[in-house]
Amino acid sequence: MHAFSKEMSECIDSCLDCHKTCLGTAMTHCLEEGGAHVKAQHFRMMVDCAAICATAADFMLHKSQFHRALCGLCAAVCTACANDCLDLDGMEACVAACRRCAEVCAAMAE
Amino acid sequence: MHAFSKEMSECIDSCLDCHKTCLGTAMTHCLEEGGAHVKAQHFRMMVDCAAICATAADFMLHKSQFHRALCGLCAAVCTACANDCLDLDGMEACVAACRRCAEVCAAMAE
Amino acid sequence: MHAFSKEMSECIDSCLDCHKTCLGTAMTHCLEEGGAHVKAQHFRMMVDCAAICATAADFMLHKSQFHRALCGLCAAVCTACANDCLDLDGMEACVAACRRCAEVCAAMAE
Amino acid sequence: MHAFSKEMSECIDSCLDCHKTCLGTAMTHCLEEGGAHVKAQHFRMMVDCAAICATAADFMLHKSQFHRALCGLCAAVCTACANDCLDLDGMEACVAACRRCAEVCAAMAE
Repeated sequence: MHAFSKEMSECIDSCLDCHKTCLGTAMTHCLEEGGAHVKAQHFRMMVDCAAICATAADFMLHKSQFHRALCGLCAAVCTACANDCLDLDGMEACVAACRRCAEVCAAMAE
Repeated sequence: MHAFSKEMSECIDSCLDCHKTCLGTAMTHCLEEGGAHVKAQHFRMMVDCAAICATAADFMLHKSQFHRALCGLCAAVCTACANDCLDLDGMEACVAACRRCAEVCAAMAE
Repeated sequence: MHAFSKEMSECIDSCLDCHKTCLGTAMTHCLEEGGAHVKAQHFRMMVDCAAICATAADFMLHKSQFHRALCGLCAAVCTACANDCLDLDGMEACVAACRRCAEVCAAMAE
Repeated sequence: MHAFSKEMSECIDSCLDCHKTCLGTAMTHCLEEGGAHVKAQHFRMMVDCAAICATAADFMLHKSQFHRALCGLCAAVCTACANDCLDLDGMEACVAACRRCAEVCAAMAE
């Protein structure tokens, strides 16, 4: 869509990719592995991250005047989620998607 | 649910009520009235407010460690939405729901 | 809001209540209890139910021409979720909210 | 993510792309153009389509037993949205994203 700058377009895509990766990993790998993967702290972080990424993408798609605040918060949640995934097996895709999204959202929030 | 304090339970309910009122009013009264009710600035504010209220409610339902940040942002969007609705006819329910939600979310964010 | 009939207003409220109960119970009681409460089949059902209830409410709030189809699907998911919760401890509120929502959504879908 | 078949992965991506295109076009092009672009029937269709696409994607990401029903409904809404956009200027990207998503979701629903 021509309506969005290249930077914003990339940020929307990073948020949707991180939503997909975190929600898909939580509901397949984490639920199927069990153990540390379904501890409340970890699982909440995954679901929080999926939720804020979807909302941040939507605020950019709305051309919302509040999109910077959403992106700033999204960057913080993604960073925390990446760190929380580091010690668990099979979470490499999550760590990568969260780190990428955190970086792009932090730039958008400035 | 016993899992939530009285304050958090009330905040979840205020967010869901504001989501319902803003989305329902935007998609019925505003679209049917047209004119100033569908100006981009106003309509975006209504949709932003509906979206952040749903997400703030979900973060409280997640027992997320980030719920205070979400509630603080929700209070800011609700306050802006209430002010934006003041000059348009038929928006009294929106103004009331947004002001109530802003007040309760601001207290939760502290 | 005057825009919705008494029946639709009650259905919107039942959907939002069931969203709140299923998501809140999954992310607190189920994650904290562990064991059978976080088995993939059960946890997915809870999250599915929370998601379809929110979407069915939104379609009614949109005055969508597709709201009957959404309510029919929501009734099916809520019924399955109520049955899935019966054998687990501490899920009484979920069973009640799912059954109530299934009944009201089934009537709306006709 | 390895957890999803190639077909399901493509369907998730088509749904997220259609969500992005419909919501982004409604909240920028449609609101900024006004006139027929913000008539209740058209605007509701765009918002319905964005909502059901996001929910269908989430049900596939959940590995939900209900994902076929969601995809079938998503295909119907996308087809209706594509047809509704045909007569309005500047909606080519929406028509293309909706048709593509309808086709992929219909195959997933079988």
